[in-house]
This record gives sequence, structure tokens and C-alpha cells, in this order.
Amino acid sequence: MNSRRKFIKNLTAVGATVPLVTNIQAKPKKNKGPVILCSRGEVWGEKVLRPGWDILSKNGKLLDAIEKSSNVTELDPEDTSVGYGGLPNEHGVVQLDASIMYGPTHNCGSVAALEGIKTPCSVARLVMERTDHIHIVGKGAQNFAKLHGFKVENLLTDKARKIWLSWKENLSSKDDWFPPADNNYDDNRTTGTINVLGIDADSNVAGITTTSGLAYKIPGRIGDSPIIGAGLYVDNEVGAAGATGRGEEILRTCGSFFVVEQMRNGKSPQEACEALCQRIIDINGGTKNINFNDKIVALGKDGSVGCASIKERKGNNPKLAYWSNDGFKVYKGTYLIEDKSVDYVG
Amino acid sequence: MNSRRKFIKNLTAVGATVPLVTNIQAKPKKNKGPVILCSRGEVWGEKVLRPGWDILSKNGKLLDAIEKSSNVTELDPEDTSVGYGGLPNEHGVVQLDASIMYGPTHNCGSVAALEGIKTPCSVARLVMERTDHIHIVGKGAQNFAKLHGFKVENLLTDKARKIWLSWKENLSSKDDWFPPADNNYDDNRTTGTINVLGIDADSNVAGITTTSGLAYKIPGRIGDSPIIGAGLYVDNEVGAAGATGRGEEILRTCGSFFVVEQMRNGKSPQEACEALCQRIIDINGGTKNINFNDKIVALGKDGSVGCASIKERKGNNPKLAYWSNDGFKVYKGTYLIEDKSVDYVG
Repeated sequence: MNSRRKFIKNLTAVGATVPLVTNIQAKPKKNKGPVILCSRGEVWGEKVLRPGWDILSKNGKLLDAIEKSSNVTELDPEDTSVGYGGLPNEHGVVQLDASIMYGPTHNCGSVAALEGIKTPCSVARLVMERTDHIHIVGKGAQNFAKLHGFKVENLLTDKARKIWLSWKENLSSKDDWFPPADNNYDDNRTTGTINVLGIDADSNVAGITTTSGLAYKIPGRIGDSPIIGAGLYVDNEVGAAGATGRGEEILRTCGSFFVVEQMRNGKSPQEACEALCQRIIDINGGTKNINFNDKIVALGKDGSVGCASIKERKGNNPKLAYWSNDGFKVYKGTYLIEDKSVDYVG
Repeated sequence: MNSRRKFIKNLTAVGATVPLVTNIQAKPKKNKGPVILCSRGEVWGEKVLRPGWDILSKNGKLLDAIEKSSNVTELDPEDTSVGYGGLPNEHGVVQLDASIMYGPTHNCGSVAALEGIKTPCSVARLVMERTDHIHIVGKGAQNFAKLHGFKVENLLTDKARKIWLSWKENLSSKDDWFPPADNNYDDNRTTGTINVLGIDADSNVAGITTTSGLAYKIPGRIGDSPIIGAGLYVDNEVGAAGATGRGEEILRTCGSFFVVEQMRNGKSPQEACEALCQRIIDINGGTKNINFNDKIVALGKDGSVGCASIKERKGNNPKLAYWSNDGFKVYKGTYLIEDKSVDYVG
């Protein structure tokens, strides 16, 4: 229904003066064989996808492939937006969220507000495979993980702790925390989250989303990442989608389910991702009210990919990385609003 | 796209031999004025809707109306499926889930795995109104509630405790819990959850879903009720939908969002509810695999209502109750599969 043409027209209608940046690279060839993608660019993309592609290219299991790829960011303390090393909540406690969905069975699992376990996507997989439930949250999720042999550890790295301290000590002049005299912090805050989507040689589809959630959140806050249909959705007849960025906007639009349903109704993954960005803009009453960012990636069952974000600096198109029989590639998507001040959104 | 005709055809295609039970009552008149509905029949319906209708009919606030109506079941210890008196998790602890969504702002709030607070929907409303988040779960949700003045109480009534004990003591012969010598329990387990949807005199739409969740769940399990798009969805241009029954099936189909999107695309609330039941059957590989039940209610922006469940005993159509300027009424919906053994589902 919403053709690309109508989409541009709508943008004009709400007063956007910035042209839609078009797809810079040609659409990738449709892959018959396996493919694995993640919502990152060159550097993280190759690092994340390598172990997953190793598994897929040797006819290994699709769920093993996306789990091992997702574990890369979860276990890496340098990434402050996912797993170990993620930025903590307002009380300085790291709480992790993750979801997994498997096309052939349409089954899914998720954990949220999980403390002390480095690899939440692996716990989400156990919720899917070893319980009759989908979501397990909070202390119950940690207990479940412990009973499946996961080790409870301190996830707060010095790097993340210092970034939190910088936030805490500069939060207000009405509390009792002082910044250091020189106000000198090594504050390198980034936002992130990661989606990993894959197709095996039999054209089965699966996906994972994993995150440490919004930095400095109220304890127990969960965003879109662990919610099936919001931060992740998979349909084995259609494909998969995942989201990063401001989770509340994805939650209240059922973002990933929306994208998969758009693909079911004939849109390409790229068109479907853009349709969600437009839906989010519409719900917020137009571009003038968009003071946040979201990024969507999608994978069609035929191996075609899509990527769109709501706003970016000029020329800074959102990216995804993918690996197929044609090797490792980076795909540049589109954005709807040009904004000089926009932050990187995973 | 999926017309009623195609819907019946699909049913035949998957081998269902049972005719679709058609809508027994005529569609209710479209209400211009306020309307409030809940996913219950005569008895609970009138009790639940009275305080909400009192507010709406005096031009009170829509959110106050649906909250006060939802509080009726939450506070009533006789209802073992919602709020105080709800059946506990496998460890005997009551954990409550609720969500709220308000059409004019498209804002929403939710709590899950909340212990010790009788009225989770009121906490969900505060998450919506007093935080930048949507979901707060577990211990964090309880702390948030306490800091907003809610009292932490023991929610496990003697009635619910005895039902739990009956489950626990008969769970296995390989544990150390014995049933009493006469195996005589006052075991009156029911499933439930409640959806309350409303429209005010200005045609604004809102909704609440509240539940104690699946009895004997693994601690921390959350179902569809607290998830925006699953157990509840509201769109001020279209209407609202809510779900009860097996939550995992609603979660993995984004049930309420699906229903609202079907209505956006032209289906009546009744047709949209049936379309979701069909989607759930399809995802499960046909009627032969349906060993659970779900029930969906929907409210169009024009005041039209819909209700469908997956399976029922013959003639035991799923109901909703609603109150409008025409007074209190009960609407009988449809079911897709006839099954003598089916339990009541909300």
C-alpha cells in the first residue's frame, strides 16, 4: 500500500525538507545458500559474523551460528551496549535483555533484567528449548540460568563503572555526589544493542537481539530487545527483522512484527524497514517531534536485506554487515531525516 | 484480504470438520457516546464495568474509568486469575502482570512479575505517566511502586494457597510433599485475566489488561498481558484489542497488535478477532495441534465490538460485556473449533 513514492510524498507532507537518501549500494544478490547478518558496520560486523559464518558454511546448526555470533559482543567488555561491559542502570547494576526466535517451529525465548550472566542470548535459548514459557525476567531469570549451569559474575567493568560515575556525579547539584575537581572522565558513552539474523542452507530463518538496555535506566526497565515482535521477529515463510535504538518507540509500534508483516504483504526488506520508520514518525505527530533514533534491519527469506534508520548525519547511512557464499559485505541503508546532531545508533 | 469467506475456506483446508459458530447476536449499534467493555460475561461484567461506566457517563476521565474497572477484579480475592488472590508461581509466590495504553498519546506502561502490590494496573499507569519507560519488571517494579506510595502486602489468599498446595502435593511421586490422606482439596482452579477497553465521549480509546499470569509458572515468567501489542494494543485512529488465554501463543503472534492492524485494514472487530484465531491455528500447523485456548476481544473506534476464541464446548460462545448509553449488554462471540473438553478461558 505505502509505495516508496507515497512514502516520499508523506515525508514532504509533514514538512520534511530533507531529501530521502537513497540506497547507495545495489541490492545484494539473492542468496540461495546460508546468510548471516548483524546490525553493525565493517569492524564489528566481521568480528561478530565470523564464528557464525564458520558454523553455517560447514552446514552447522542455524541456532548455534546466531548464538555464537551474538556471544561475541556479549562477551566483549569493549562494547558498552551489550552483555559483559554494558552500561548499568541508575543504581550502577548491569541488567541484560535478550531474545531469540526460530522460524521452523515459530518458537521463541527471552530474558530481561537479567543480572550477573554474561551471555543472556544463551539463557534466552534455554528458555525456548527447556521451558514451556517465552519470557522469564528478573531474579527468576537469573535463578533459571544458575540452575542451567551459568556462572553469576560481576558484569560491571571499570570502563562502564567510570562512565556511570560520570553520569551520576553530574546528574544534579541537589544530591551529594561530587565530580572530581578537574571534571576529567574517560567518558566514551555509546548506544548499541545488536541484532543477528540468519538463514541456513534449507532456507530456515532465525534471529537474536541482545542488549544491556538503556544506560542509567530505572531498575527493571526493559526495552524492545527482549520482546518478541518488538526488538525481534521471525517468520519462516517471510524472513526476520530486528531493531535497535530507542526501545520504547519500537515497543509501541511492535516494530519487528510490523516489518515482517509488511514483507509478508509484498514489500522488500528495505521498503518494510522504511515503512516502520515512517509509522514511528507518524505516531509521534511528524518529523518535528522526533528527538530520538531507531534503526531497523530485515532479512527476506530469499536472502535479500534491508536497513533503515529514522535520522542520521548527512551521508552517514545506517549499515548492516552480512556474510554469504559471496563473502563478507556491508550494506548501506537509508535514513528518513537528516540531522547534524544525531548520535550513532548501533 | 482474508475475507470471512476465505477464513472459513482455510478452516476447511486444514481439515476442520466443525462448522464455524456464527455471531449469535446482531452487531451492537455503533455508539457515538462512551463505551466500556471487558472480556467477561454477565456476572463479572456488570460488577467490573459499573464503576468505570459511572465515571465515563459523568464525563470523567477515560483512564480513570478503565483503571477503576480493572481494580475491581484486582482487589477481589475471589478471582484467582487477577491481582490479589491470584494463583501463585511454582514457589507459591503471587507475581502480577498488567499493561495500559492510551490512544491520544499512543503512550503505554506496564509492570510484570510484580510481587506484593494488589493493583498492578495502577502501577502500570504510573510507569506510563511518571517515567520515560514502558516496561518495568520484577523487584524494580515493586520498588517503583513503593516509592509511589503503594503498600506491599501478602497477596496469597488462603483460597489460592490451598489450590497451590493441591497442585504441589500431587505434582510428583518423586518429591517429599504428600497429599492429605483423603486427598480432599477445595480445588477450584480457574484461568482468567481480564481486558478492559474503553472509548470516551470524544472518541478517544484506551485499554488495560491485568492478570496473575499462568498458575504455577516458573518464577519470573511473564505472558502476553504486560506486553504492548500482545495482551493489549490501542490505536486512537482504529480501536483497541485485548487477549486472554495461553499467553505464549498471543506473544508469538503479537495478537492484539495484529487485531488492531486488521481493523485498520478494513476488517470489523469481529472479523479481526477471528483472523487472529486463524493465524494462531496456522502457526501451530492446523487444528489438530491446538491443545490450548485463547480469547480475543476488540473495540472499534465507532463502538463496534468483536470477540472470538479458538475452541469452546458446543454452544458455549465466548462473551464480552459492555456498557454504553444503551445500558449494560453481553455480546456473544464466535469460536473456531468445537471441543467438548475445553476449559473456560477468561
